[in-house]
Amino acid sequence: MSDSASDSSSGDDRCRVALLLIDFVNDLDFPEGEDLRPHAEAAAEKAADLKRRARAAGVPTIYVNDNFGRWRSDFAATLDHAARDGSRGKRLTELIAPDKDDYFVLKPRHSGFYRTVLEELLGDLEADTLVLTGIAGNICVLMTAHDALLRNYRVVVPRDACASNAPELNEAALEQMRLVCKANVLDAAEVDFEELKRRDWDACE
Amino acid sequence: MSDSASDSSSGDDRCRVALLLIDFVNDLDFPEGEDLRPHAEAAAEKAADLKRRARAAGVPTIYVNDNFGRWRSDFAATLDHAARDGSRGKRLTELIAPDKDDYFVLKPRHSGFYRTVLEELLGDLEADTLVLTGIAGNICVLMTAHDALLRNYRVVVPRDACASNAPELNEAALEQMRLVCKANVLDAAEVDFEELKRRDWDACE
Amino acid sequence: MSDSASDSSSGDDRCRVALLLIDFVNDLDFPEGEDLRPHAEAAAEKAADLKRRARAAGVPTIYVNDNFGRWRSDFAATLDHAARDGSRGKRLTELIAPDKDDYFVLKPRHSGFYRTVLEELLGDLEADTLVLTGIAGNICVLMTAHDALLRNYRVVVPRDACASNAPELNEAALEQMRLVCKANVLDAAEVDFEELKRRDWDACE
Amino acid sequence: MSDSASDSSSGDDRCRVALLLIDFVNDLDFPEGEDLRPHAEAAAEKAADLKRRARAAGVPTIYVNDNFGRWRSDFAATLDHAARDGSRGKRLTELIAPDKDDYFVLKPRHSGFYRTVLEELLGDLEADTLVLTGIAGNICVLMTAHDALLRNYRVVVPRDACASNAPELNEAALEQMRLVCKANVLDAAEVDFEELKRRDWDACE
Repeated sequence: MSDSASDSSSGDDRCRVALLLIDFVNDLDFPEGEDLRPHAEAAAEKAADLKRRARAAGVPTIYVNDNFGRWRSDFAATLDHAARDGSRGKRLTELIAPDKDDYFVLKPRHSGFYRTVLEELLGDLEADTLVLTGIAGNICVLMTAHDALLRNYRVVVPRDACASNAPELNEAALEQMRLVCKANVLDAAEVDFEELKRRDWDACE
Repeated sequence: MSDSASDSSSGDDRCRVALLLIDFVNDLDFPEGEDLRPHAEAAAEKAADLKRRARAAGVPTIYVNDNFGRWRSDFAATLDHAARDGSRGKRLTELIAPDKDDYFVLKPRHSGFYRTVLEELLGDLEADTLVLTGIAGNICVLMTAHDALLRNYRVVVPRDACASNAPELNEAALEQMRLVCKANVLDAAEVDFEELKRRDWDACE
Repeated sequence: MSDSASDSSSGDDRCRVALLLIDFVNDLDFPEGEDLRPHAEAAAEKAADLKRRARAAGVPTIYVNDNFGRWRSDFAATLDHAARDGSRGKRLTELIAPDKDDYFVLKPRHSGFYRTVLEELLGDLEADTLVLTGIAGNICVLMTAHDALLRNYRVVVPRDACASNAPELNEAALEQMRLVCKANVLDAAEVDFEELKRRDWDACE
Repeated sequence: MSDSASDSSSGDDRCRVALLLIDFVNDLDFPEGEDLRPHAEAAAEKAADLKRRARAAGVPTIYVNDNFGRWRSDFAATLDHAARDGSRGKRLTELIAPDKDDYFVLKPRHSGFYRTVLEELLGDLEADTLVLTGIAGNICVLMTAHDALLRNYRVVVPRDACASNAPELNEAALEQMRLVCKANVLDAAEVDFEELKRRDWDACE
């Protein structure tokens, strides 16, 4: 029964690279939300540019995002909630608004891999390389990077497309991803999707 | 960041019992779909009645369903797809239409537990008893029951609210759930949600 | 730290096929143990022959087995316990005694995949085809087969190398594996490891 | 079949607190092993003292450790390998030698929770509070702490019973655990197992 569903879930998007946008769709309604907001918006602008370039290169974009409210597998409601008038994250969310052909993965906890469809979807896409962006760099992005390491994905992290409550927290997380996850940490402008698609996994370790 | 999301995901629905509706939202667009259709519709009527009684008893209903099409965490789109004009599953889906306060869990494969939020949601609900209904009884319902056994849930299976392509396949699956999963297999009319809420786990083993 | 451990965990055994022996190492100390015993011993003889032929073909054997006693990651203790004098499973266990170059995976519950290293090990081995044998056919073997289906393994089940408490339970489980898991169910004597190694995954579906 | 195994796997050790010793059993045979060695040995001395006090308080100790060599579910072989003559980790391993009533969980990757029995064992023990010690603090201990957060365990980290290749890496990891995992980071001498057993989970958040 689920075979057809699974088979079609990735459309024609098979590509070894995937761009992940983590928790950008967000009302920032938590104590440090106002600290995070300007950093998050700056990162979202970089991520939006990455997304445009990913599409041009045939690289799929996956929103990996906290659910807001009751669990209804309803990314659209999460989007509406985050972008509603009065939401602290309205501008943030609008900066990185999803398109019809993006993928949406709702997650219940910090890591994008924990109790979600993400690994299944990446398998369908045949992706082995993840470009990680999002908020907070030292929480959900870092924990997703660790889980990607456990599963042997190659990780690329554009440092200015990740944001944390404070710049030094972001720096520490990037250093952890570089050192422990063997992530390629670079500027968003340096990400070359065509090269990532070509590059040999083993050669880049 | 995800703490608040997770904390609120179960609203005020804490209840030791949950009613699961597995794959009833379905266009039945597969080879044996026409065989399954009448059995599925009969089961959906029973499940719809169970759902009404569950609500009256304060027992939450969780739709656990295959995703159709591209993965967009969009249960509403799956619903629209299954209930569209011309869908073989239009009547089936309408028989068991979801309500605003139901939970929706999209699954990528046969078991409701595999790479889904289900276990997290059940934990938030503090549910230890699952009433399983759906299609196909010998595939997705049975595999969900097995996974429930691994996780120590108590399983109740209303036999006439499950359907398979052929009655003898359904019977065999029910016998497997009774024998191996120690499921309480009974008529839908016999399910007493108030009793399930009260009944001591150990006493019923 | 664990990279080296993981890298070396599969030695030089890379092979697309793996032979799994499920719960044969067993003291049969449960109510139906005496019913199961003769069937289990007959299946173990077939499995022992399969194991000899697997080795000749360079196919690794993995014991996937319940733990007995306190969790100490000590397969040798489980083996000693099952083969001790007075154990109802002494002969069974001796029929299928492990060798130095076999793999051992201890499992806490029925399925070989649940909370075990099995999927990691199969990934290291690059195995996509599993030959399943063991006891009980309608419990641990069947649940392992279901979990293999979720993960897209090709499943081969030698019917006379699986045993259940009663022959009709074994038959029903084999039929479920054939029908739902698309398993190739055949006589142990018919298993041709060289052919399984060569055969194209897609061609055999 | 596995019910009895599972039921007995935790003996009579039910206790809300568990002490985890992560990767202390180690031959330190990797490039930074000589850097790590003195820090690891100092941490192991603290951990050994914690273990003595844990036992006095009825708190179970769980070795959560990388496997060395072929996967054979054989913690004893891992122990022998690490403590063999000529192993760089001989003294380290001897400092924290296991006892008969300890638990041993072999892990294939960095996190103690990934594809291991750990969560099952903690469930059997009814543990909700983990005292984490081990090496490396910024790799396997940190990733285990993150995974503990996902699963809602309360985390306690004795800072001098964790070691990393360099003190500043250890400090950064401890800060991450304090900030993100809400871990109670303190000196090993300050850990009061009796208090941890009594203390109300909610009260300490």
